[in-house]
Amino acid sequence: MVTNYAATVAYDGTEYSGFQIQRDRRTVQGELESTLNNLTRQPTRIHGSGRTDAGVHARGQVISFRSEWRHGADEFGRAMNATVRRDISVRDVRQVGEQFHARFSAVRRVYIYNLYEGPIRDPLLERYALHCRQPLDVAGMNRAAELLVGEKDCAAFGQPPSGNVTVRRIYSAQWSRRDEIVPDRPGLSFRIEANAFLRGMVRRIVGTLLHVGQGLLDPSGVAEILDSRDIGRACPPAAARGLCLWHVEYE
Amino acid sequence: MVTNYAATVAYDGTEYSGFQIQRDRRTVQGELESTLNNLTRQPTRIHGSGRTDAGVHARGQVISFRSEWRHGADEFGRAMNATVRRDISVRDVRQVGEQFHARFSAVRRVYIYNLYEGPIRDPLLERYALHCRQPLDVAGMNRAAELLVGEKDCAAFGQPPSGNVTVRRIYSAQWSRRDEIVPDRPGLSFRIEANAFLRGMVRRIVGTLLHVGQGLLDPSGVAEILDSRDIGRACPPAAARGLCLWHVEYE
Repeated sequence: MVTNYAATVAYDGTEYSGFQIQRDRRTVQGELESTLNNLTRQPTRIHGSGRTDAGVHARGQVISFRSEWRHGADEFGRAMNATVRRDISVRDVRQVGEQFHARFSAVRRVYIYNLYEGPIRDPLLERYALHCRQPLDVAGMNRAAELLVGEKDCAAFGQPPSGNVTVRRIYSAQWSRRDEIVPDRPGLSFRIEANAFLRGMVRRIVGTLLHVGQGLLDPSGVAEILDSRDIGRACPPAAARGLCLWHVEYE
Repeated sequence: MVTNYAATVAYDGTEYSGFQIQRDRRTVQGELESTLNNLTRQPTRIHGSGRTDAGVHARGQVISFRSEWRHGADEFGRAMNATVRRDISVRDVRQVGEQFHARFSAVRRVYIYNLYEGPIRDPLLERYALHCRQPLDVAGMNRAAELLVGEKDCAAFGQPPSGNVTVRRIYSAQWSRRDEIVPDRPGLSFRIEANAFLRGMVRRIVGTLLHVGQGLLDPSGVAEILDSRDIGRACPPAAARGLCLWHVEYE
């Protein structure tokens, strides 16, 4: 009997060419599918809530897949964790209804972007946070981020994965100073929540807000870029390493 | 003119066979010396405050070396950071007196060991913290850690780097729960401060205290191991990845 499963997975994206499977590249989807194929002896196709770019991390990516596995969902998770590469882990596996699809059933996604300021690179943050030499104007970045909240045509910040609808509902977008992004190391986190994101959208938004933080762009300039719907107007995307798919919500 | 320099360096030890130079192995000392040789066009020998093991990290390792570099200490640091591998960084460079030696002048060292509890591995902590499946008895580990404080013969926990003096003065040794060892991820940190450490000493102490935390050993058993002065009595060393040389103090 074929059951529909969902799993929450975390990964360090540093050594992957992104989530989506590609021939001759190491991808998160490829690694998870080969783990499932080895466990179940059947070809298994997984669907992710979204396709993270090369180098982007996840703490709460959700995947769904159909399988004839009959030893229980918890045991499925344990078996996957015992064999998958150590830069991926399966946080939980659960049976879901026939209609559940990790991408189409998702109603909200949350991404976090981490960075730290200071003259010197920190090798212990190299994989997980962007290094900014100069202090940033956080108040200005937050004034600009507020302008993105609401139902907006986000064509200036990314490409639709399919079709041509570029309108997204952004629920919140905010920078906050943190005492520790690792122990004793202060940093800045950007948290953005939307019904869905276009390809490259979070990194282009972060890149654009960083221009505001560096005094190169007024907060109102961000609204102009958004209104232009022209991807050529956005600032270059911020480095993948600071980005993490944090949480995906379903009804 | 030859000047004596000291530098504070940080590194991610994951891809190094430890600090100390070894033929045909990638070591932190080897990488820093080759960076200096390339910059100054002169063979340069560096001395570290201590020799971290393979996989151990540092935030506050101190090195000293003599060099004819004449463009100022700050510029020396910038030049080193521009060319050294990205898993090492030079936090500062300063001129020091003729007598300064990173190892022999050091009066205190601080190490931090990080771990997290829970049934599932976290790939974003894989390089920097130990994963413990079961919750640990922190109060018990701290009762045991207290027994180590003072001037003690630590032969049970490590080997002297040279000579045969195994007495060390431990100033403090304490576990504390942290709300975040990365954002939203609670964990445990062990901080130990001593005048100096024997080889492998922090990892054997942590390994032994973890046995207490797991209920496999009474706190008083740690005192017995210490008193035995027998390295065969200590528990196996805890994994290198959780350990970080945090700070070195000079007079």
